[in-house]
Amino acid sequence: MDFTSDNSVGASAPILQALVAANAGAAPAYGADPWTIAAERALDDVFERQTAAFMVATGTAANALAIALCAPPWGAALCHAGAHVQNDECGAPEFYSGAKLIPIEGEAGKISPRALAETLASLPKAVKQVQPAVLSLSQATECGTIYTCAEIAALAEIAHGAGLAVHMDGARFSNALVELGCTPADMSWRAGVDVLSFGATKNGALACEAVVVFDAGWLEEADDLAYRRKRAGHTLSKGRFFGAQMTAFLENGHWLDLARRANAQASALEAGLREAPGARLVWPRQANEVFVILPAAVDAALRAAGARYHGWTARALAPQDRPRADEVFVRLVASFATQTAEVDRFVDIARKTASIP
Amino acid sequence: MDFTSDNSVGASAPILQALVAANAGAAPAYGADPWTIAAERALDDVFERQTAAFMVATGTAANALAIALCAPPWGAALCHAGAHVQNDECGAPEFYSGAKLIPIEGEAGKISPRALAETLASLPKAVKQVQPAVLSLSQATECGTIYTCAEIAALAEIAHGAGLAVHMDGARFSNALVELGCTPADMSWRAGVDVLSFGATKNGALACEAVVVFDAGWLEEADDLAYRRKRAGHTLSKGRFFGAQMTAFLENGHWLDLARRANAQASALEAGLREAPGARLVWPRQANEVFVILPAAVDAALRAAGARYHGWTARALAPQDRPRADEVFVRLVASFATQTAEVDRFVDIARKTASIP
Amino acid sequence: MDFTSDNSVGASAPILQALVAANAGAAPAYGADPWTIAAERALDDVFERQTAAFMVATGTAANALAIALCAPPWGAALCHAGAHVQNDECGAPEFYSGAKLIPIEGEAGKISPRALAETLASLPKAVKQVQPAVLSLSQATECGTIYTCAEIAALAEIAHGAGLAVHMDGARFSNALVELGCTPADMSWRAGVDVLSFGATKNGALACEAVVVFDAGWLEEADDLAYRRKRAGHTLSKGRFFGAQMTAFLENGHWLDLARRANAQASALEAGLREAPGARLVWPRQANEVFVILPAAVDAALRAAGARYHGWTARALAPQDRPRADEVFVRLVASFATQTAEVDRFVDIARKTASIP
Amino acid sequence: MDFTSDNSVGASAPILQALVAANAGAAPAYGADPWTIAAERALDDVFERQTAAFMVATGTAANALAIALCAPPWGAALCHAGAHVQNDECGAPEFYSGAKLIPIEGEAGKISPRALAETLASLPKAVKQVQPAVLSLSQATECGTIYTCAEIAALAEIAHGAGLAVHMDGARFSNALVELGCTPADMSWRAGVDVLSFGATKNGALACEAVVVFDAGWLEEADDLAYRRKRAGHTLSKGRFFGAQMTAFLENGHWLDLARRANAQASALEAGLREAPGARLVWPRQANEVFVILPAAVDAALRAAGARYHGWTARALAPQDRPRADEVFVRLVASFATQTAEVDRFVDIARKTASIP
Repeated sequence: MDFTSDNSVGASAPILQALVAANAGAAPAYGADPWTIAAERALDDVFERQTAAFMVATGTAANALAIALCAPPWGAALCHAGAHVQNDECGAPEFYSGAKLIPIEGEAGKISPRALAETLASLPKAVKQVQPAVLSLSQATECGTIYTCAEIAALAEIAHGAGLAVHMDGARFSNALVELGCTPADMSWRAGVDVLSFGATKNGALACEAVVVFDAGWLEEADDLAYRRKRAGHTLSKGRFFGAQMTAFLENGHWLDLARRANAQASALEAGLREAPGARLVWPRQANEVFVILPAAVDAALRAAGARYHGWTARALAPQDRPRADEVFVRLVASFATQTAEVDRFVDIARKTASIP
Repeated sequence: MDFTSDNSVGASAPILQALVAANAGAAPAYGADPWTIAAERALDDVFERQTAAFMVATGTAANALAIALCAPPWGAALCHAGAHVQNDECGAPEFYSGAKLIPIEGEAGKISPRALAETLASLPKAVKQVQPAVLSLSQATECGTIYTCAEIAALAEIAHGAGLAVHMDGARFSNALVELGCTPADMSWRAGVDVLSFGATKNGALACEAVVVFDAGWLEEADDLAYRRKRAGHTLSKGRFFGAQMTAFLENGHWLDLARRANAQASALEAGLREAPGARLVWPRQANEVFVILPAAVDAALRAAGARYHGWTARALAPQDRPRADEVFVRLVASFATQTAEVDRFVDIARKTASIP
Repeated sequence: MDFTSDNSVGASAPILQALVAANAGAAPAYGADPWTIAAERALDDVFERQTAAFMVATGTAANALAIALCAPPWGAALCHAGAHVQNDECGAPEFYSGAKLIPIEGEAGKISPRALAETLASLPKAVKQVQPAVLSLSQATECGTIYTCAEIAALAEIAHGAGLAVHMDGARFSNALVELGCTPADMSWRAGVDVLSFGATKNGALACEAVVVFDAGWLEEADDLAYRRKRAGHTLSKGRFFGAQMTAFLENGHWLDLARRANAQASALEAGLREAPGARLVWPRQANEVFVILPAAVDAALRAAGARYHGWTARALAPQDRPRADEVFVRLVASFATQTAEVDRFVDIARKTASIP
Repeated sequence: MDFTSDNSVGASAPILQALVAANAGAAPAYGADPWTIAAERALDDVFERQTAAFMVATGTAANALAIALCAPPWGAALCHAGAHVQNDECGAPEFYSGAKLIPIEGEAGKISPRALAETLASLPKAVKQVQPAVLSLSQATECGTIYTCAEIAALAEIAHGAGLAVHMDGARFSNALVELGCTPADMSWRAGVDVLSFGATKNGALACEAVVVFDAGWLEEADDLAYRRKRAGHTLSKGRFFGAQMTAFLENGHWLDLARRANAQASALEAGLREAPGARLVWPRQANEVFVILPAAVDAALRAAGARYHGWTARALAPQDRPRADEVFVRLVASFATQTAEVDRFVDIARKTASIP
């Protein structure tokens, strides 16, 4: 019963096999290998257009490179107050770009058009201030919720109207996509996303993310990313490692299958906990994460039974929604490798413990 | 006949198997996994002392982190004029550290004690100047030569005497080590090296290097590297990828076997080319690289036969040693995967073509 | 009637005369001149202890250098959400230090001990996060309010207890000091301040601020600031320009006289506006700034009469306190050069206009 | 007899008077004052075209901003090995821009077209390397020599042909200009200079330099410099300080008069020393600096008589030209304030001492 994160397991079997298969023989270094080239083409296919893609080993590197492409050193990147770029990357976006992050509050991890407009209004063109340069959206959000394509488009329209680029942190792009049931293009560039951090690691790869640049006007400037990536130490000499993973990830919709599995297990968890007396679901489960407030006794019983998961901060919650002294706020993450038996046992313990008077 | 680089092949079979074996099951993320912990212990064993080790995916990242640990933003890192950190990392050491690189000229890729002393004398303590903070030595050098332990110690003594730390870029540490026949401790901290970029990728790993901090006084400060690494996007969520590689690399002397293989093939290449009329060996082969000036006809014949290798810049050569118009300066790199048949065929073509009048 | 800012006038007469007097003759460059040395001694006298002082031309440079001394690139500087370092320096502190600013909300521009403690609690020691390194307090605040020495000490105790240094942005240090009536030492290092941006420009100099380092343990490390200042282009070749200003500023309590004048005029403004029907004073006047909500008609009448001042953002106000549609929120700043006649006329217009039915 | 530097004296009388005159009254802050606006117009007049100008307090800041405008973080700035930006600014250009400086050797402080072309050829378009982005020329050079307009044009043509911008470090622009007798436009943008660090401090101001952007295509992008300057803490609140200096500097050719005075005194020094037995002039005096090797006895006699000047490094000299054990290599700088009597006395001592057997 490991629900700590979707990065607590290794690679999916097809991706591991692809790595093994790609290991043999000599190939050009630094991304000129056939696997990398195939991966770049596969990304073009998946997104139904020409893209410029730069693979890196971590989501932090992908986000930091993407923001550095969009924002000058005196620029500002607007993001949700709970965003990964703001709280969980030890300042990497600022390090790569020099820009400042401006957090925006919002319900359930999402930025509202109104909050975006207000933030922009608070940052007029004045030399004393950093200048808004990019809006960074997380899809899925850190609360496990997702933006609809229309919501993304509405935010992108405001951002573009104010001269900002739009970046999407898609560490869990796959999980959001299968939930919406739209195309990758719909959820990205057709909705106004200019640059995407396209995550594969959390959804079945070992260590592979891609910065994917869409905007036609940017494709040339995107070459800058090749230098930025090298300068950040993220250009692998044995580039096949990235190429093989990404190719296998995208092949035959493998990535969508993996995401559907993860989401389905999270959905089952949510459904099961809904029936557990005393458990309070915090945000709607829309991807592969369930945020729930559990009675302390349930938490203790689960951990005693070997369940693993992280406690979560209640700072984002309204005071009245926060856990009481006898409650614990936790995050449960399902991955492609989560087993139905794990979920069933977890739910079973939660229900039984909760119902003990 | 691929002699382009020691990064043109994948991982060695034991390292690949270790990756596959480590793929199964759940484990803590971000380096708290058992493979990473085992790798850190193995490094302590190999270096016969407590170390602080930080694994990353590229040598560029390792060098940049190591230099950032040693040099403040107004500091200078002294290195050979032909060093990888100076010419081949797109400014990564400067990006990570803020420091300035001061190149030192020297024969065959090596810094002499005299040149080091002169450079230090040219940088007195004055606010207008960057202040020397670290000496970065490459072992093996970019010319395929190596420093003896006594040479390292002599340079380290000068550096330490002037208040500098000593960094070693050990992308080809293994290749140098097996040639000298000394212990890893002798070639590093016992000779005065404070921080080592310990390379595994070129010698059999897929993507794994480690910054290894030796200095006892620095072990606490080295924790800073954990933040610097995260901030640079080099902290893998699925840390097992690094841990499994490094463990297998070090296990049972596998890394030394790999390096011996590579060096032996390079030695055979050198010996064979010594007999090829018209071929002029440039620097002594001391690790796994051979630098040679070939008659243009020989170069053409080799390439026609499918041999692959890089032409090399003659800038480091004295004018009288540079290739003539009918000659080509090339670098030949042997890896752990180089086959005797490749070497034999290469030498055979070189000799036969050269002897045609 | 110019109440735009305390930087809208030139230098005080004694400071200007000192500049003229210091202009003659040759002197060593880059801060080795006698005026700079005298200024450094004067700062030691004023603060009753040994200090390390580094003069620069702007408060932004002083704050950025001070924060860079206190925070590593992966560090965080905690400051009020309305602080100058956060909103009005175009990212200079981040540029100089690499650190991230973490804003803290608080009434009337002040950070409360509770809010500081909560912010610290939200940033546990974890590699994914920037690490709190310095608390930056503004004295006087951007709301024109001031911390008592006891309040500073209470915040510093929390900060020090968590391993943070304490920086004070003292662009209006003088104005706060004369209001409290304590000694410079009491309001700085005796209350726990480790590094001070000591402002002279707003209070009578032409362009002169000093980073003043107090902490005995830091005096050596403070030498780093000499390199950081040079590297930022803030080391004047004709250092007498700074030295002469600072010496004249501190001589015979001139700086305190200047601040008393400014505060007295602001106090008169506040008292006068208190009697103006419809005018709503927003924060208590504690230094040389008055924040007031005026009826739109009053604002129009004042501007028609030639009064100059800046409108102010109401974002920091609770919704119920914000200006209504027929009101304007403005900031009035008095300087050492503000004339009683200006204040009287301003108040007179405000009262008369407000009382017209 | 102070020949230490042209920054060892204060401001010229007209510039000081302008400062005093500009001190009175209220004016908009941060560069919107009438003196700054007048200075910007005066620069347009002097350079016979529209420019975008950004005044700062030091030459280091001007150079660093200019290079940051021209070079991306992965770019390279090519400069002479002896350039101020390379050796005397504690890494400021790298700090502001992120770019790497690539030094080029050359006789008497000057870069030759051949050396420039060779350096460019050594930096092909490859991701592993920083990419040449700007050529930085010093006029006058650190050796006191100057480029002719034709020489500047020849270098600029090569630079532009390779896609580089051209920056001129004109800390001693005035001194070079009056020697060549051409127009400011001829020696800058008409010869291909895109961005100029226009120095006033060494030639009569107290602390004032300007980054002057010429290129029409860059005028919009130059607005970025307003943000970069603020972010570096170089935007003065009391902008009149810069505006008054620059206006007085340029008014009625005052700057040219000042430079002519300095050059004339340096010329007299050179002429006098030419007749001093044992004195060896090193580089031709072309601006306001004389570099000379003196017999040690002469040096001792001069210093005993109170003469002040800096010893200089002989590293740039060919071995056969370096000072012998009984000689001293020194730099003598004349300023606008240098008196004929100082020069005469200096020469007199040098001649008399040298002629003593």
